[in-house]
Amino acid sequence: MHDSLKFPFSSEDRLEPEDAARALKAVEALIAGYKERFAVLVERDNKGHSIIHEPVVDYLTELRWVLEDMHPADLAYVLEALPLEDRLLVWDQVKSTLDGAVLLEVNDSVRETLISSMDRAQLVSAIAALEAEQIAELAPDLPRDVVEEVASSMPLQEREQLRAVMSYPDDCVGARMDFEMVTIRDDVSLEVVLRYLRRFDELPDHTDQIFVVDRENIFRGALPLQKLLVNEPDRQVIDVMHQDVLQLGPLDDVGEAAQAFERYDLVSAPVVDAAGKLVGRLTIDEVVDVIREEGEEQVLAGVGLREEEDIFSGLWNAVKNRAPWLLLNLLTASFAAFVVSRFETTVEKIVILSALMGIVAGIGGNSGNQTMTLIIRALALGQVTPSNIRRLVQKEFLVTGFIGLGGGLIAALFAWTLSRSITLGLVMWAAMMLNLLVGAAMGLAVPIIRARMGYDPAVGSSVLLTFATDSMGFFIFLGLASLFLL
Amino acid sequence: MHDSLKFPFSSEDRLEPEDAARALKAVEALIAGYKERFAVLVERDNKGHSIIHEPVVDYLTELRWVLEDMHPADLAYVLEALPLEDRLLVWDQVKSTLDGAVLLEVNDSVRETLISSMDRAQLVSAIAALEAEQIAELAPDLPRDVVEEVASSMPLQEREQLRAVMSYPDDCVGARMDFEMVTIRDDVSLEVVLRYLRRFDELPDHTDQIFVVDRENIFRGALPLQKLLVNEPDRQVIDVMHQDVLQLGPLDDVGEAAQAFERYDLVSAPVVDAAGKLVGRLTIDEVVDVIREEGEEQVLAGVGLREEEDIFSGLWNAVKNRAPWLLLNLLTASFAAFVVSRFETTVEKIVILSALMGIVAGIGGNSGNQTMTLIIRALALGQVTPSNIRRLVQKEFLVTGFIGLGGGLIAALFAWTLSRSITLGLVMWAAMMLNLLVGAAMGLAVPIIRARMGYDPAVGSSVLLTFATDSMGFFIFLGLASLFLL
Repeated sequence: MHDSLKFPFSSEDRLEPEDAARALKAVEALIAGYKERFAVLVERDNKGHSIIHEPVVDYLTELRWVLEDMHPADLAYVLEALPLEDRLLVWDQVKSTLDGAVLLEVNDSVRETLISSMDRAQLVSAIAALEAEQIAELAPDLPRDVVEEVASSMPLQEREQLRAVMSYPDDCVGARMDFEMVTIRDDVSLEVVLRYLRRFDELPDHTDQIFVVDRENIFRGALPLQKLLVNEPDRQVIDVMHQDVLQLGPLDDVGEAAQAFERYDLVSAPVVDAAGKLVGRLTIDEVVDVIREEGEEQVLAGVGLREEEDIFSGLWNAVKNRAPWLLLNLLTASFAAFVVSRFETTVEKIVILSALMGIVAGIGGNSGNQTMTLIIRALALGQVTPSNIRRLVQKEFLVTGFIGLGGGLIAALFAWTLSRSITLGLVMWAAMMLNLLVGAAMGLAVPIIRARMGYDPAVGSSVLLTFATDSMGFFIFLGLASLFLL
Repeated sequence: MHDSLKFPFSSEDRLEPEDAARALKAVEALIAGYKERFAVLVERDNKGHSIIHEPVVDYLTELRWVLEDMHPADLAYVLEALPLEDRLLVWDQVKSTLDGAVLLEVNDSVRETLISSMDRAQLVSAIAALEAEQIAELAPDLPRDVVEEVASSMPLQEREQLRAVMSYPDDCVGARMDFEMVTIRDDVSLEVVLRYLRRFDELPDHTDQIFVVDRENIFRGALPLQKLLVNEPDRQVIDVMHQDVLQLGPLDDVGEAAQAFERYDLVSAPVVDAAGKLVGRLTIDEVVDVIREEGEEQVLAGVGLREEEDIFSGLWNAVKNRAPWLLLNLLTASFAAFVVSRFETTVEKIVILSALMGIVAGIGGNSGNQTMTLIIRALALGQVTPSNIRRLVQKEFLVTGFIGLGGGLIAALFAWTLSRSITLGLVMWAAMMLNLLVGAAMGLAVPIIRARMGYDPAVGSSVLLTFATDSMGFFIFLGLASLFLL
């Protein structure tokens, strides 16, 4: 049966975007074959027959073959998509030389499961093969002594690089930079540069420019490879190099650096310290990761998830990830319920209010969330400035007021249909309008104030908003009803 | 006063990620100065004094200077952050040679405002300077006859490229590819390639590899620039080039292509048609745009916004963007209200139910949204496969059940505090559990079924989910209360 399985791709085939998905299918089929056969064998054994090991081993051998030629990123993809038990079966078959590279590619929670399945020696040998900045990336998930053992056996320069990267906060350029750059002096000809480059076996990935420094390693400029290639070899570096290159500081915010990469379509940028010394470089692959992470964080934060969840992560991890936000929502919902309970006599007399009040609260929250999402985005792009904030506020209230007029009318008609009371309809209309304005006010104020105070405006803002629109929605609607209908 | 304003950056200064923000501040200050002075002049004029034009013109001249040296992307950033009136004032000062490049960089709604301020001749001259694929990108926002006029004056080859790009759906690689690539044959030496490259004035942006084709333009492989540089010039292209390069088809999904770029850390990839011919290339800057757009779409879709809104867009556009989703929510909330109204007698007898029922509905929706967000993400990454879907479902129900046990207990205690009824507490507990499971079921089913049917699982899913958890939450809670408390 399993002979019909095609190896997902070989180097003669063309690589395609769907390759990883095909590899996953092949791996799943092999694991299924392995498990099935294994189960059959165990059954036979219970009946007293002897165990034939070979067919099972066959599946594992073929699995190893499949895994052997896979790109570490594809392996990471396959491991992420497998349930824990299958994941560890596959992980045991991965060649140990790839271990470090795969650990770099998998997401945090899968990385945890893989690392906890490895012993100290395996970890040390997996990590030792990596570059300083890669080790720094894995360090938070590794046992402290493993990192130290690896560091102690590194050359002095790399050890210092490792310390440097690990010393910067996670959201700084310094924590994301690498050190694999080619540097030259400015007083040589392109011919000399070309000869110098031929002494390399290969250039670091994403080398689109060579950095020009002086004797003290002070950054002078950059020589794009394309300039090196289109200019005559007898020209001097100083005449050809670019001096107005985007330079990053190690403490620059990495999100802002990413925006600069996007704006100027960069592939790499030098990282230069306060003294003007070239200390590293940031490359587009890290920037792509940053952009992806930022997008995901915002999506996850929107529903109160603190981190990406391994879809097969343990029950306890998943509960820990999700419960705090739900608990917070439970508290705010309870407060809203408390508000309603204060209007017990009103609701007792006009029961239909209990059906209608949820509409007022809900739409206020929905509309406020729209406002808030747009403001968070404008804040992230730096489009909210002291001089335009008044117009922004004006516009939001106008739009919301307009929507409130229309939406409130529909809600009022619905209220009238249920109750046949024109006064109740008018109360509904007024309450909708007012609560939509509460939503707009909160949608504007919460992210702007949080950003001013230095917090990430995306996280937790929607809980605060819903808290306000729920409680205020009930209060406004039931309050108006008490005034005009009792 | 305005003399103290520093030009935001000059080519001797180092470029920094904050430059665009500084430029924005300078532009805002100049506009403010211009307006203030202008207002003063007009006032004087009303009093019968003569108008002194110069100081106002000064501000405009300085504004033009500031704008002149700005990168098109920075100009786009500034234009996006300005209110409409100021935006058009700045836009009028931008050198017309930059117009096309800036139009490419601004977001859709700002682009609309800029284009509608330009006359036909201005548009034609702005567009004519662009590459075929750039014109194709702008085409949907341009008057049809402008595109045709520009196309008719293009060389035949470029016109064909324009047609090709415009013929592919927006989410295909073909619609995002460009044609600026360097191609060589495989039977020459690197020396010949080096000499060939020196005949260019410059290489296209993001040229990290040169494509190798045969006489029929069939794709044979790629020669990375770094291989060209580290190998001896007398070696042959065929010995040095890579053959196992990721190849994209023009009809491949651009999101999947972006994932491949991320996985394999690519800077460019050839686009090859079904016959094996090289037709174009995709570069990392387009991929970064795709990733950013995808992240934003998901965030916007989460609150029912159809498109990014220009923060100063007209009232009507904003209402059109936001109202449909709010209307949909109004309908689902009204349905939920209708469900509640069917339990009028129950609520009349036990008024406190009206306060508590919102908790059951709300938490079900919140928890379901967490499940749904994780599933949508797993679907996007292709991690949901037929063989693991059962375990996924199992896990979600387990996690939700566990959270329901704990959260339900807290809610039950709250219900007991308000009502002093143990039965009501138990009803609350049971209703919470059940509605959380409804949320989990919907959070799983809605995106998976939508994806199976070929829809984008992110759009509109949350409305469907909230519809279910609200209506079912009220129904379950009030239903159980009617059974056990009346």
